[in-house]
Amino acid sequence: MTRRDALKIAAAAAALLITGCDKAPAPETAATPAQASAPAPAPAPVLPSWNDGAAKSRIVEFVNAVTQEGGADFVAPADRIAVFDNDGTLWSEQPLYFQFIFMLDQLKAAAPKHPEWNNDPVFKALQAHDVAALGKLGQEPILALLAKANSGMTVADYDKSIRDWLATAKHPKFQRPYTDLTFLPMRELLDYLRANGFKTFIVSGGSVEFMRPWAEKAYGIPPEQVIGSQQEVKFEMKDGTPVLTRGPKFAFIDDGPGKPVGIYRSLGKRPIAAFGNSDGDLQMLEVTAAGEGKRLALLVHHDDGEREFSYDRESHIGKLDKAWDEAKAKDWIVVSMKSDWKRIYAFEK
Amino acid sequence: MTRRDALKIAAAAAALLITGCDKAPAPETAATPAQASAPAPAPAPVLPSWNDGAAKSRIVEFVNAVTQEGGADFVAPADRIAVFDNDGTLWSEQPLYFQFIFMLDQLKAAAPKHPEWNNDPVFKALQAHDVAALGKLGQEPILALLAKANSGMTVADYDKSIRDWLATAKHPKFQRPYTDLTFLPMRELLDYLRANGFKTFIVSGGSVEFMRPWAEKAYGIPPEQVIGSQQEVKFEMKDGTPVLTRGPKFAFIDDGPGKPVGIYRSLGKRPIAAFGNSDGDLQMLEVTAAGEGKRLALLVHHDDGEREFSYDRESHIGKLDKAWDEAKAKDWIVVSMKSDWKRIYAFEK
Repeated sequence: MTRRDALKIAAAAAALLITGCDKAPAPETAATPAQASAPAPAPAPVLPSWNDGAAKSRIVEFVNAVTQEGGADFVAPADRIAVFDNDGTLWSEQPLYFQFIFMLDQLKAAAPKHPEWNNDPVFKALQAHDVAALGKLGQEPILALLAKANSGMTVADYDKSIRDWLATAKHPKFQRPYTDLTFLPMRELLDYLRANGFKTFIVSGGSVEFMRPWAEKAYGIPPEQVIGSQQEVKFEMKDGTPVLTRGPKFAFIDDGPGKPVGIYRSLGKRPIAAFGNSDGDLQMLEVTAAGEGKRLALLVHHDDGEREFSYDRESHIGKLDKAWDEAKAKDWIVVSMKSDWKRIYAFEK
Repeated sequence: MTRRDALKIAAAAAALLITGCDKAPAPETAATPAQASAPAPAPAPVLPSWNDGAAKSRIVEFVNAVTQEGGADFVAPADRIAVFDNDGTLWSEQPLYFQFIFMLDQLKAAAPKHPEWNNDPVFKALQAHDVAALGKLGQEPILALLAKANSGMTVADYDKSIRDWLATAKHPKFQRPYTDLTFLPMRELLDYLRANGFKTFIVSGGSVEFMRPWAEKAYGIPPEQVIGSQQEVKFEMKDGTPVLTRGPKFAFIDDGPGKPVGIYRSLGKRPIAAFGNSDGDLQMLEVTAAGEGKRLALLVHHDDGEREFSYDRESHIGKLDKAWDEAKAKDWIVVSMKSDWKRIYAFEK
């Protein structure tokens, strides 16, 4: 995903803040809550929710090549590093990054304690649904205000606020918990890579705190393999007890050129496979693809407006433009959600 | 370890920079290069290089308690997080943090390309061995100059410079590679914890780059479980190739109050066991010990001047003063290297 287009995001955010997503359509094909949990026969089919085609074939070919001992493309297990963007790559990101929806809910909840916000032009514009004013203000003050909503909280209280929200909030289109909206084919891909000795990482523009509570259950990715943006955190003694409290600013933005930096900081290795869906993933894909030996770079294209959402070059969220051009020029894999995936969500059918 | 006492560190640094450690004594008991690699009988003895005593008993008692299913102190495997300081806790740190020795060597090597350093008061003081001048300059400009020595390098070149140095440099007292100076009893402790379902992390004031190339082999700790200080890194396109280059400043100092922050950033969980040796580990130990349920906080006390080094409250490196008082007040485990450890290094005997 990309976080660069704040004016448009803010407009969408403002709409959500006010309307509370009340245009929600009926949930899709929710008749059976089946989780596809039947034990697989031996040998388990590879990537069962993927249709046969170039995307699937190229993934399997890559994995076979780098895992074949003695082969020209063999990569030792310690170097089989695969990195995945989260928003738009492993789960949905429309009509607004889910974390932004959480932050707006949090801002609304915190507003009564912050009468000074009534004079804050950003808050006033958000409250008044004033898209033109938000456009003039730009990205910095909007992110700054969102961060202020949890500034001063202990990390434990902040964690609880996220868990509480995730347990109750529902997506406006699907009327389901946001954590239901992970992509089944990508979860299969994560399992498939790990079964072949890969270590899998999330590398997201979103905050680490927003992903860690559910990433292990949903994706099999433990907390230290979740790389993301970081708000300031400070050690303090409060009444003789050591606590960590949140500051009002971001210390690191793990997006665009920040993604390879975040990978380097957390891991110190160049991945051999990278998966994204937007211009915010471009540099991560470039760095991965530029390494020596066989590499895999893949983009998920959101072209299924019926089962999910359809958007690319002109989207305010998850804009796919430059990275798409680069994918074509460099022959990276571009996955069509519409034609490459039999199912998108586990709750389908 | 602590990095706060730069004046004294700089003095020691200056001494090393000039003398090249030429006061090296004879290596100790290096007659047999045995690695204690004989296969252990079943069941393997627990912590074989530890003498029986309170320290060992309390460690074993803690592990038994948190792993006993159904017991009052049981902790699920996902929450069995153990954090280890590196310098002075997992390997030696005298006469100077080994990374500082590397950085000084690097500074000397880079000096011919930086004629402007001849007018830099820090460099002049280092070259002239002028301890009084270094004392007046303070910590900031000294660290800044050390960081400049590799500023602008690609991360790949920097990694190579570290590996090359580690492959050739020798410790002045033991005349062995620095990576030989890990503590055998602590390596056994890491193995023992992992065998009991713990996940083990390094949390060091040192830079991640300096540890990751050898931490997995030496300690069984993979790169994403190495938390440390971070110099700035920047994404750039150079001649059409994406590269990461090092900036001239530190982005994060993982020491003292920075350690619990570093743990939070990398992992988002509170450890249940923490191991350190100096005041730089105090806050990490405090945060660990303050959690609910059974906790383990342990300090390694360097009291064996014959087999290793003897130092604590007055040391310029690895000062153990406030943390020692806290350990006594809170009944944390204090390990005597002299009496609790049968062997310190694997090459002994």
